[in-house]
Amino acid sequence: MTEISKLALRAREAARALARTSTAQRDGALVAMAAALRSQSALILAANALDMEAAREAGTPAPLLDRLMLDAGRIDGIATAVEALAREVDPIGEVVSGHRMPNGIRLQQIRVPLGVVAMIYEARPNVTADAAALCVKTGNAAVLRGGSLAIRSCLAISDVLSRAATEAGLPEASIQSITSTDRAATDELMSLHGLIDVLIPRGGAGLIRNCVENSKVPVIETGVGNCHIYVHSGADLEMALAIVMNAKCQRPGVCNAAESLLVDAAVCETHLPTILRALADAGVELHGDERTRSLGVVEVVPATEADWGTEYLDMKMSVKVVSGLDEAIEHINTYGTKHSEAIVTGDYEAGQRFLDEIDAAAVYVNASTRFTDGAEFGLGAEIGISTQKLHARGPMGLVALTSTKYLAMGDGQVRP
Amino acid sequence: MTEISKLALRAREAARALARTSTAQRDGALVAMAAALRSQSALILAANALDMEAAREAGTPAPLLDRLMLDAGRIDGIATAVEALAREVDPIGEVVSGHRMPNGIRLQQIRVPLGVVAMIYEARPNVTADAAALCVKTGNAAVLRGGSLAIRSCLAISDVLSRAATEAGLPEASIQSITSTDRAATDELMSLHGLIDVLIPRGGAGLIRNCVENSKVPVIETGVGNCHIYVHSGADLEMALAIVMNAKCQRPGVCNAAESLLVDAAVCETHLPTILRALADAGVELHGDERTRSLGVVEVVPATEADWGTEYLDMKMSVKVVSGLDEAIEHINTYGTKHSEAIVTGDYEAGQRFLDEIDAAAVYVNASTRFTDGAEFGLGAEIGISTQKLHARGPMGLVALTSTKYLAMGDGQVRP
Repeated sequence: MTEISKLALRAREAARALARTSTAQRDGALVAMAAALRSQSALILAANALDMEAAREAGTPAPLLDRLMLDAGRIDGIATAVEALAREVDPIGEVVSGHRMPNGIRLQQIRVPLGVVAMIYEARPNVTADAAALCVKTGNAAVLRGGSLAIRSCLAISDVLSRAATEAGLPEASIQSITSTDRAATDELMSLHGLIDVLIPRGGAGLIRNCVENSKVPVIETGVGNCHIYVHSGADLEMALAIVMNAKCQRPGVCNAAESLLVDAAVCETHLPTILRALADAGVELHGDERTRSLGVVEVVPATEADWGTEYLDMKMSVKVVSGLDEAIEHINTYGTKHSEAIVTGDYEAGQRFLDEIDAAAVYVNASTRFTDGAEFGLGAEIGISTQKLHARGPMGLVALTSTKYLAMGDGQVRP
Repeated sequence: MTEISKLALRAREAARALARTSTAQRDGALVAMAAALRSQSALILAANALDMEAAREAGTPAPLLDRLMLDAGRIDGIATAVEALAREVDPIGEVVSGHRMPNGIRLQQIRVPLGVVAMIYEARPNVTADAAALCVKTGNAAVLRGGSLAIRSCLAISDVLSRAATEAGLPEASIQSITSTDRAATDELMSLHGLIDVLIPRGGAGLIRNCVENSKVPVIETGVGNCHIYVHSGADLEMALAIVMNAKCQRPGVCNAAESLLVDAAVCETHLPTILRALADAGVELHGDERTRSLGVVEVVPATEADWGTEYLDMKMSVKVVSGLDEAIEHINTYGTKHSEAIVTGDYEAGQRFLDEIDAAAVYVNASTRFTDGAEFGLGAEIGISTQKLHARGPMGLVALTSTKYLAMGDGQVRP
């Protein structure tokens, strides 16, 4: 048996024991885990220094280095988030539905852990702590697989958390990390149907596609966001400008940032020039269709077919003039990734149709797509944003890490 | 582009249009579909007669022939089930949750169709009508693929329903069937990630395993039920006898029938002989462990390791004497398929521990496993019984064929 199968088997055992822990035990473990992050921060920072050194030598770009970097303040922030989870309401054990059956059986559907949750993620060390803590909160065993760039930091955090959880009375192997960062480890993890209950990849489109196409374990697709802002003919220019600038520029590297701008032909001469100038002034590289380019207000690269489907995660934006609502909806449903889509309009019917007809996890009228987020939506801690339709859609809170089971209490009932 | 890709693309288009239909339109279509089944029953019966003839020539066993056979009464029953769906509450559009965000955005999570639902199933022609009707009710486009034995009946039913739905105003291609019954058609269907939103296989363990292992489209695992009845030392013999006999013999070919009997050593001499005799008298072939065989009450074949994991779907049962609750839970969690499991006991603590520690969709104290069923659980029409933990677990009603999306209505909010 391979190391990864053994690790998964241990996780399976841990999951059975975790399913029997109480809320108080799991919340107590979270408090202990947060304390351990703080008291053993030197160990974590030393591992992170080695990751940083290797990353610098490999010529890693500055924004990635910044994501990778830990300091005492950041570790404290991670610990505070773990502590905060201990104060959230426990979803496990909730009676979701129930009634007395006509034959007298007392039926209830209760919320239970999923079992073993595997996560594959990339460069951010904090994801290790977030994922481990969310799994502990929901009574799931965690199998974590961090990216190579952050592997030393991830393993250090995982070790600290795993020891703290065990010392606090949770089963051994409640939190485990895979030390290997090669592709074979991912492939093996994806093959362990029956041992792992769900695989959540968080990272680039390539990682997620690989999981979706090759995993025998059920996958929750997350994060890829080719989000649009559609400026309808009924839009107020100032509102449209504010929303476009916020959605594109406030934090361009995240999945709910806008990547594409659609503008109605009816307002392309009144509204678009102002928006294009503001985007160009902010340093956004524009990829536009012929009509946008012909306005001649700023430099616009000719957009290719590929641009319409690209999540830049960068200060770039594609721009297209559309004939109206129908074309905008058709375009978004064709090229979007079903993440977050927004219309700016003062027209009631256009707003209603956009809400109804756009197929996405979150659909906005007159607001920035940047609000698609667990905390913003009031879900508390977030494990990711699902762009699929099964199980969970949109920001995934604690409930997304749970399943249900039916309990039936009778006094001898048999089926006639 | 292949025929199946074209069909899936048409389904995708239909799904977009279906998402815009009203409850009244979809319920009206269901009534029309039921009427068409009755008015065109001759056409369906003619197709079924050809299936029956071919099946008889191929030496198909009598129970399968009975499942395959249609007559006017059965078609009327199918039509009545379709009509009944029209009277159920529409889950689509339900506001599942919502609140006003602190910044004033009106947020609501509403229930929407999944999109395109594909079903692969085996010999029962009525599944075609059930699946098509459930999809229409929930605004999903249906792609159906019936088994070769029933293919003429399935295609006839699908044609009748599809025409009736279109005439009633639903989009073309809302209901489509795949005419090819070869393996390549299934394989291609499983590869259409992005066109098909979910694949639900209904049939034997081999079909389901093939889908789980090879599908790029998300799969909902259904139905395989290696269900146990555990007679605890605190069980009343009469109650245990009634539950075992009901769970094993009332309808042995279905997934919630019991396949395995566990009996505490403490009562194996007081309780087991009576139960074994009753099972043997009813014609159940017993596969037992050494302890069971040594009782010498009736003929018991030696059980092999394979017996503990086998869903017989037949008048056969494996029997094992266990040392107590711990061994019973361990055995069930090892060999069970997470479908339906029951304990018979008068002991409060044993019942509570069984409910907590057994990992299955439905866990029973003092009742037959045969109650795991959408209608019995009050869910109305059922599309299958999920034995996985993601998305839906246990009997799947209309809600299992839905997803949600967030609608956010603002007045210019941007993220600070």
